[in-house]
Amino acid sequence: MAKSPSVEWSSQSRIDLMEYKSAVISIGNELLIGKTINGNMGFLGSELAAMGFPVDVCEMINDERDAILQSISRCWEKYDVVISTGGLGPTEDDITRNVIADFFGKRLKFDEEVWEHITNMFKYRKTKMADSNRVQAMIPEDFTVLKNDRGTAPGLYYSEGGKHFFALPGVPMEMKHLFNFHLRKILIDNFEDISGVVQQDLHTFGVSESALAEMISEKELPKGAHLAWLPQMGRVDLRIYGSDMDALKAAREVVVRKAGEYIWAIDAESPAAVLLSWLKERKLKLAIAESCTGGWVQKHITAVPGSSESFLGGVVSYSNESKMKLLGVSEKTLAEHGAVSVETVSEMARGVQKLFDADISIAVTGVAGPGGGTEVNPVGTVYFGFCVGDKSFDAKQISSGDRNSVRHRAAEAAILHLYKYLMDE
Amino acid sequence: MAKSPSVEWSSQSRIDLMEYKSAVISIGNELLIGKTINGNMGFLGSELAAMGFPVDVCEMINDERDAILQSISRCWEKYDVVISTGGLGPTEDDITRNVIADFFGKRLKFDEEVWEHITNMFKYRKTKMADSNRVQAMIPEDFTVLKNDRGTAPGLYYSEGGKHFFALPGVPMEMKHLFNFHLRKILIDNFEDISGVVQQDLHTFGVSESALAEMISEKELPKGAHLAWLPQMGRVDLRIYGSDMDALKAAREVVVRKAGEYIWAIDAESPAAVLLSWLKERKLKLAIAESCTGGWVQKHITAVPGSSESFLGGVVSYSNESKMKLLGVSEKTLAEHGAVSVETVSEMARGVQKLFDADISIAVTGVAGPGGGTEVNPVGTVYFGFCVGDKSFDAKQISSGDRNSVRHRAAEAAILHLYKYLMDE
Repeated sequence: MAKSPSVEWSSQSRIDLMEYKSAVISIGNELLIGKTINGNMGFLGSELAAMGFPVDVCEMINDERDAILQSISRCWEKYDVVISTGGLGPTEDDITRNVIADFFGKRLKFDEEVWEHITNMFKYRKTKMADSNRVQAMIPEDFTVLKNDRGTAPGLYYSEGGKHFFALPGVPMEMKHLFNFHLRKILIDNFEDISGVVQQDLHTFGVSESALAEMISEKELPKGAHLAWLPQMGRVDLRIYGSDMDALKAAREVVVRKAGEYIWAIDAESPAAVLLSWLKERKLKLAIAESCTGGWVQKHITAVPGSSESFLGGVVSYSNESKMKLLGVSEKTLAEHGAVSVETVSEMARGVQKLFDADISIAVTGVAGPGGGTEVNPVGTVYFGFCVGDKSFDAKQISSGDRNSVRHRAAEAAILHLYKYLMDE
Repeated sequence: MAKSPSVEWSSQSRIDLMEYKSAVISIGNELLIGKTINGNMGFLGSELAAMGFPVDVCEMINDERDAILQSISRCWEKYDVVISTGGLGPTEDDITRNVIADFFGKRLKFDEEVWEHITNMFKYRKTKMADSNRVQAMIPEDFTVLKNDRGTAPGLYYSEGGKHFFALPGVPMEMKHLFNFHLRKILIDNFEDISGVVQQDLHTFGVSESALAEMISEKELPKGAHLAWLPQMGRVDLRIYGSDMDALKAAREVVVRKAGEYIWAIDAESPAAVLLSWLKERKLKLAIAESCTGGWVQKHITAVPGSSESFLGGVVSYSNESKMKLLGVSEKTLAEHGAVSVETVSEMARGVQKLFDADISIAVTGVAGPGGGTEVNPVGTVYFGFCVGDKSFDAKQISSGDRNSVRHRAAEAAILHLYKYLMDE
C-alpha cells in the first residue's frame, strides 16, 4: 500500500457484541417461486448488523393474509425491530398495508399529502395514473409516513412499547432509499446505546482468502481487536473491528505490515471511484478498449457520478475488424498471436490511448466462455494491457466460473491492476 | 405484438392451485448478516414450484440449536415436504445434523460407506483431511444417505407419515447436485399425482403495472385461468397460469387482444437474447454508441454467449470530442442542441452504424444524474436513436430514481425499443 490514509473508523457491529435483534419479513410470491432472489434481505442483513441490530430470522412468505398476520405476530412478540418488505403496490395482491392495519388494530385513513406526492410522481414521469394508485395513499392511523422519493409506495412506521415496526416497499431501489433516508435515523434516535463498535475495511487484491488467513490470524492482533475476511468479487476485504481504539490502530499496523502489499485502499467506495478520484486530482484522462468484458469496465467507470471529468470514452472491439480499424492492432499480430494474447491487448491499449488522445488506457481481451477455449487459452483466460503515458504493462488472469463471473472478475481486475500500478509507482 | 409465437406452456404452479406444499429452512449466519445472498432459495423455489410443490415459506435462521429445532418443528407439522440447507459441514458451528437427529428422536451412527467416500474425496483433491471431517460420516438412524459427488457432506433424507424431510448442504453446487440427482426422483416416486399446472410469461414494455392492471383483470379471463403482474426493471411481465389448457389459450387471446401492443415476447430469456437471435437468423450486424449508459447496453448484449456473431462492437463516447471525431456528430448540432438531444443521438446512431459498417445501430444519450439536469432535460431524461438500414427512428424516456436505476432502465429500453420496432415492421 502506497500510504496509510487517515480514514475515520466507521460504526460497525458484530452479532456477539450486540444486545438488540431484528427480524425481516420478506413478502412476495415472486420470492418463493424463485423468480426473484431476495437481495433486499442481503442489504438489510448487512446494514442492520452494522448498526447493531443483527437479523435473527428472515421469514419469506406469500402475499396471503394469514401468512402475513402469523409472521408479524411471531416477530413482533420476539424482536426489537421488525421490518417487512413488499406488498405495498397498487394491485389486488398488494395486501400488506391492510393486514398491518388489522394486526395493530388501526383504521386506514386517506392521506392527502401522500396522494399529492403520488400524483406528482406520475406527472413528472408523464405516465397515466390509474385509480388503483389511490390505495397507496391509505395510511394506518398512528403510523408515520416514510416519504418515498423513488416511487409511489410510501413506507410505514409504527412504534409501541420500545419496539419498532417498519413496512417498506419491495422494489430494491425504493427499499434502500427509505432505509437510508428514514429508518437509519429513526433507529439511531431511538437507541442511544448502540454504537461504540467501529470498523475499517482494508481492501486487498491479488491474494486469496485462504492465503490471507494464513498470513494473519486474529490471535496475533492486540486484545480487543477483531478480524474478519470478507470475500468480494475477485478480491477480499479485511475488516478490523472492535471498540478499543488503541487496539484497533495497533491491529491495523499489524495487518498492514503483514499484507500491505495487497492492500489498495481503506473503506473505499469502489475501485472505479478511487481510480477516478486519483485521475481527477492529477487532471489525467482515461480511455478504455474492451473485448470479452464487452462494456463492463466502462460501465463500472461511468457508474461514478462526475466520471466524465476524467473518462473520455472507449471502444468495445468485439470483431477483429474493429480491433484493426479503430485501435490499429496489426493484422500480423492478430494472425500470429490471435485476438486473445498479450500482444493484441498491448496494441489495443496503445491504440485506444491514441484514438482518444488519453493519458492512460486500459485494454481487455479474453475467453469468457462457454465456448472458444483453447489449450493455450482455456475458458476464463483474460489478458490486460495498460498504458500510462509512454510506459506500458500487462497482466494475465485465469478464473473459473461461468461467463458472467469471468467477465465480472475481469472488469474488476482491469481497474485494480491499473490502480495498484499507479499507487506503487 | 407482431405475431403470436407458438411457444410451449412451461410447467409451473401457483400456491393456490396446488395440493402439496413445501417449506425451506435456510440455515447459516452468513445469510442473515448479508454476506451471502440466498440463491439456494431461488433455485429451490423455482424447481419445487415447477414440480408441483410450491414453497409456502422459507425461514432463514442462524446456526443455533433452538432456532433450528423450532423451525423444523413448525414446518414438519404443516408441510408435505421440508428441505433444510446448510450446517452440514465439519466445523463446530455445523450443528444441523445433530439437531435433526434429536428432533426426529434418532441416534447418530458412524457410516463406513460415507466415510470411505469422504476420504476418497480428499485423496482426489490431494488436500489434507482434518479429523473433524469424521462428523460428516455420522448419519441419523433410519435416514437415507444422499450421496454427494461434489463434496464431503452427504444429504440426509427421512420419510414418515407421507411427509418428507431432506437436509442438504449449503454450498450451492452441492445442493443443486443433490436436488437434481436424488431429491427430484424421490419426490416423483412418492407423489404420482403431481403436475398439471403450467404457465406462460408475456413480456410487456412501455406500460406501467397499474395501467396493465386497469386494462386486464383476472375476472375477465375464462374460469381456470389465472393472471399475475410481475414488475421487472423498466417493464412488466404478465403471467397466465392454470391447469385447464383451453382456458389458458383463451385467456392468452384475451390478454393479447387487450395489451398486445405492449407485448414483445413470450417466455423469453432476456431482451438482448431475443434481439440477437432475431439478428442472427437474418445475418444482420449490430453496432452501439453509448453516452450516459457508458457501456451498459453493450454489456447486456455481450452477456449472451455467441453474441459476437451479430454484434460488431461499439463506442462509449463520453466526451463531445469523441462524439465528433469517432461518430461524426457535427459541431453545429452539439452547439445548437447540446449533447443530450434527439438531434445528437440520431447522428450518433448513424455515425456508429457507418464506423462499424453495421446494418443496425443503437445510440443512447441522457442525463443520469445526480448532477447535470436542466429545465429542458431534467435528471432521468434519456434519448435513443436507431438506424435500421437507411431508416431511422428515435425515442425519449424520463425515469425517476438514482443514477444507477436511470442507467439500468435506459440500457434495457435501448434494446427493447429496437426489438419492438423490428417486430412491428
